[in-house]
Amino acid sequence: MINITFPDGAVKQFEAGTTPMAIAKSISEGLAKRILVASINGQVWDMNRPVYEDAALKLLAWDDSDGKATFWHSSAHLMAEAVESMFPGVKFWVGPPIDKGFYYDMDLGGAQITEEDLVKLEKKMVELAKQNNQFVRKEISKADAVAYFTEKGDEYKLDLLEGLQDGEITFYTQGEFTDLCRGPHIPHTGLIKSIKLTNISGAYWKGDEKNKVLTRVYGVTFPNQQEMDEYLLMLEEAKKRDHRKLGKELGIYTMDDDVGPGLPLWMPNGTIIIEELEKLAKETEEAAGYKRVVTPHIAKESMYITSGHLPYYQDSMYPPMELDGTKYYLKAMNCPHHHKIFDAEPRSYRDMPLRLAEYGTCYRYEQSGELFGLMRVRCLHMNDAHIYCTKAQFFEEFKAVNDMYLKYFKIFGIDKYVMRLSLHDPAKLGQKYINEPELWLETEEMVRQVLKDTNTPFVEVADEGAFYGPKIDVQIWSAIGREFTLATNQVDFAQGRRFKLSFTNSENEQETPLIIHRAPLGTHERFIGFLLEHYAGKFPVWLSPVQVKILPISDKVADYSMGIFKQLKEAGVRVEIDNRVESIGKKIRDAELMRVPYMLVMGEKDAAAEKVSVRRQGEGDLGQQSVKEFLDNFKIWAKRE
Amino acid sequence: MINITFPDGAVKQFEAGTTPMAIAKSISEGLAKRILVASINGQVWDMNRPVYEDAALKLLAWDDSDGKATFWHSSAHLMAEAVESMFPGVKFWVGPPIDKGFYYDMDLGGAQITEEDLVKLEKKMVELAKQNNQFVRKEISKADAVAYFTEKGDEYKLDLLEGLQDGEITFYTQGEFTDLCRGPHIPHTGLIKSIKLTNISGAYWKGDEKNKVLTRVYGVTFPNQQEMDEYLLMLEEAKKRDHRKLGKELGIYTMDDDVGPGLPLWMPNGTIIIEELEKLAKETEEAAGYKRVVTPHIAKESMYITSGHLPYYQDSMYPPMELDGTKYYLKAMNCPHHHKIFDAEPRSYRDMPLRLAEYGTCYRYEQSGELFGLMRVRCLHMNDAHIYCTKAQFFEEFKAVNDMYLKYFKIFGIDKYVMRLSLHDPAKLGQKYINEPELWLETEEMVRQVLKDTNTPFVEVADEGAFYGPKIDVQIWSAIGREFTLATNQVDFAQGRRFKLSFTNSENEQETPLIIHRAPLGTHERFIGFLLEHYAGKFPVWLSPVQVKILPISDKVADYSMGIFKQLKEAGVRVEIDNRVESIGKKIRDAELMRVPYMLVMGEKDAAAEKVSVRRQGEGDLGQQSVKEFLDNFKIWAKRE
Repeated sequence: MINITFPDGAVKQFEAGTTPMAIAKSISEGLAKRILVASINGQVWDMNRPVYEDAALKLLAWDDSDGKATFWHSSAHLMAEAVESMFPGVKFWVGPPIDKGFYYDMDLGGAQITEEDLVKLEKKMVELAKQNNQFVRKEISKADAVAYFTEKGDEYKLDLLEGLQDGEITFYTQGEFTDLCRGPHIPHTGLIKSIKLTNISGAYWKGDEKNKVLTRVYGVTFPNQQEMDEYLLMLEEAKKRDHRKLGKELGIYTMDDDVGPGLPLWMPNGTIIIEELEKLAKETEEAAGYKRVVTPHIAKESMYITSGHLPYYQDSMYPPMELDGTKYYLKAMNCPHHHKIFDAEPRSYRDMPLRLAEYGTCYRYEQSGELFGLMRVRCLHMNDAHIYCTKAQFFEEFKAVNDMYLKYFKIFGIDKYVMRLSLHDPAKLGQKYINEPELWLETEEMVRQVLKDTNTPFVEVADEGAFYGPKIDVQIWSAIGREFTLATNQVDFAQGRRFKLSFTNSENEQETPLIIHRAPLGTHERFIGFLLEHYAGKFPVWLSPVQVKILPISDKVADYSMGIFKQLKEAGVRVEIDNRVESIGKKIRDAELMRVPYMLVMGEKDAAAEKVSVRRQGEGDLGQQSVKEFLDNFKIWAKRE
Repeated sequence: MINITFPDGAVKQFEAGTTPMAIAKSISEGLAKRILVASINGQVWDMNRPVYEDAALKLLAWDDSDGKATFWHSSAHLMAEAVESMFPGVKFWVGPPIDKGFYYDMDLGGAQITEEDLVKLEKKMVELAKQNNQFVRKEISKADAVAYFTEKGDEYKLDLLEGLQDGEITFYTQGEFTDLCRGPHIPHTGLIKSIKLTNISGAYWKGDEKNKVLTRVYGVTFPNQQEMDEYLLMLEEAKKRDHRKLGKELGIYTMDDDVGPGLPLWMPNGTIIIEELEKLAKETEEAAGYKRVVTPHIAKESMYITSGHLPYYQDSMYPPMELDGTKYYLKAMNCPHHHKIFDAEPRSYRDMPLRLAEYGTCYRYEQSGELFGLMRVRCLHMNDAHIYCTKAQFFEEFKAVNDMYLKYFKIFGIDKYVMRLSLHDPAKLGQKYINEPELWLETEEMVRQVLKDTNTPFVEVADEGAFYGPKIDVQIWSAIGREFTLATNQVDFAQGRRFKLSFTNSENEQETPLIIHRAPLGTHERFIGFLLEHYAGKFPVWLSPVQVKILPISDKVADYSMGIFKQLKEAGVRVEIDNRVESIGKKIRDAELMRVPYMLVMGEKDAAAEKVSVRRQGEGDLGQQSVKEFLDNFKIWAKRE
């Protein structure tokens, strides 16, 4: 008999060689039907794979990220089976799950897959899924595996086999299809209820542009039709809200070949949003006792050797500039510069916590294939700050940072968010993690306590902390339910020591400060990209580049319109006037398209009554108001939050 | 007889071979005594050198920059004579006039000049000056000159001779001293009435660090004692106001070896000044119809080939970063990025003028020996903007820019300023100057007219325009009378074409815009350096990093003080509280040293009366006020301008 420990701590005995499926069934048949894959001592594990030793067991369903990943990986195998039935002789490379769905890279010989083929493949997949074919795991010797694929003439799988050791090789078979695969898989194909193949593209073998181009087919599947419908709706909405499309239409940013890929130029409308966000950050940070600094965008090599970014992070940095016999690097992060400012004056415990903030611009090298609009760029304006504090101050400081996040979420109407708390692994202290066992436990517990005290939703992940301390990744969801990683929030025991930072404590001894890295608004690039989708370009009034557009119906009200324009401008409204010789219908349509929140349509009647006819973007006419009334209302509408 | 044309246009006849001195005497003996050097057809010319042809004549005295330069160059010869009398065998390299005074580089063999020697040399110079020795010019053949210095064993002058042609070589002799020199010089040593040798330093021969180090002796002289006294007083004051000293004491900026030379890190107090200046610029530019943009700090090589900065300006740029087979450069100017934003959308005459503004950060390579505090740096935060306009709009636009300069001068109490208008030379159109003869004349005349209309003091300089249009250098003087170059203001006919910028004019044709480059507040680096000296660190209240410091006399008023602190902070005052266990005397002294404009001394009597005792930095006690009174007053004190 073996002991199986359940997540709630309960321990139950089972025959050695039992399977997670058998255990699930012993609890409830209904449960067993929903479970996609198990976790045995932290390792994902086929439901039908026997367990011979004592183990901690988790049963993972669709709402678990490992459940989803396994579901999609199995779906890739199902797609491969369908492809093989339509394109005999096809050879497969790899077919992993991705963020949403899966793909499989394949060599179709001379053949091509068309959009019409995708529809046929979907049908075939549905047919195969209905067969409820089990995913059968088989351990196989390297020699037998090599023999199998040699006979098939499949150089791709043979290439994969080269990197594998005897004893760790497994085949998975469902229906007519067998694949080299480390698994695990869902119990059977019948769980895959809804199928959509979404895209065909080319992909270099092994990502190397010197290699052959393989065909990559993308798909997404769900355990029920409803989720598929919601997903497709979200996709359609996301397409309308594509930040690249809106970014161009609304004059937010532009890219230029002579400037370079991944380097957005912010147009006047985007700059207004940047400046409003910076204003918000400055006010919020000012109230929270931060001090602002401004630092150069470059530093000598020696700085990044001290920080440890060189050589470890070198691939993500721009290459150096050689000057006067020294290498200079564009900064990829602001921390070292801030540490130097901490270090520029003698510090005492009375100066702590010292909170240094800067909307610092960093440069990071991303492969050009990875670049994507504002989401993956090479130039990042970061809402950065570093808090230097004592251990005794850490809890309060970390709580204040967390509160700031929550405050921002409220301002931007971000209702769904999760903090992902990455912890250390005590077994890896001194290797993967800086060897400060007590400090790890203490700060982790303090961070956990802050998250609990503030009812902040969070998950804990073991063994994913940064080298120098626990780390929080902030995940947020846009209004249409797409997930974004906003920012990372880190505790740092190491940099203080590397930079020999210290303060005189109350016992008159030198002490190294703890450092918190934080960036609640992430980068302008990513956050504005997110906001474009989140608001569908309809920014709240305080963030709108143009808040009011005056639309004169004819030349006869030119003077009156200009008078109102000046009044509004003086009142601090971001106002424009549309003096083109166009119909009022055209003027309204254009202002609507530019998502200007308020339009003031000016006709002779308005002029005679000394009023303005107010229109709300997307909503229509709000009726006549006096300028004073409108301005009074506007003040309320334009308030933040 | 020859015709001599005077600056007022009058023409008079003189014997051929007359001298400027004879002509000056023919006007007035008194005048002749004041004149230091002449200008003959634009060439500076010894007063005693004969003139054989028709010529335009100017007589230059001390208030003329060429007069000053000649005076100081002659003073360098006088110093050389004194040095030779004390250090026989000394060999001289070059001895030019500089901004204020002169230096001479010399090889003293094994000997050294000490501070005490300087005093002796000054005495000797006074003695020699009183001999009223004439500076005598002698034309000499190259062979004779070489023979002379070969005999003297002077390898330095022989080296200089190598670069000279027969027929252009002259010697100058005064008293016992003869030097190879192209001149000109003042009439005689007796004009040099007041002498001060200011400094000894080392200087590599020809500025090349592989060469021998020569001794460089600096001095300054004046035609009367009063100017010397004023100058020395100014120097002393400038030393107290040294921006590097104040910059450190007041926590404005710091430098760090790991960041690199010429790359200031702005500390919290400096950042507040930066942000206040940017706020001023944004408000001013917003009111003047500018739009703001944000651009990356790098661009591809191709951008700077288009702009023409590569290869011509390459030496002043940071070296390139090689990435994905492309060279990227740190931007040394913002214009090309702004042109790309102009070009990102189709523009029509209705969009013009388009004024794009950015406090852009540029990087320029300055030799490390040239770097000086905030005055000569490698990182520049520039108050930049580019105005794209039609020719018809140019006058108004240029006038608005000029008005902005004048507005800023008023705000910062800059009473003395001169605009230096650099024009083209019609003879060099198509070579040194872009070949747009009419556009040159038109824009020059418009610029001139703006300067006249606004009573802006200006001088015109022929043949010093930029390649692409007329240029204005803005010179300002600090409160202690030191001169600074604030900014350059340029008209640009060329870049628009190079970048193929165009707009649709009202005739529906494509037209290239005129571009105005302007930066009224220069760079943060230079302007804040200037302001530190100008205000002696006592910034006006609106610019002061800390505006009010609360100084509790004892712990007994801790709560009361903290209450006032919060009230002031809420009212938007930049307030700090000095809670150290120090005497009130020490607290006041420290706040005075930090130039905090207002101190609120808090004692038990203040707490009992619910008042605050107000102290003005540098002025002392202003008496008790209620918090409301103080805040009402503070609002007035903290107003800009």
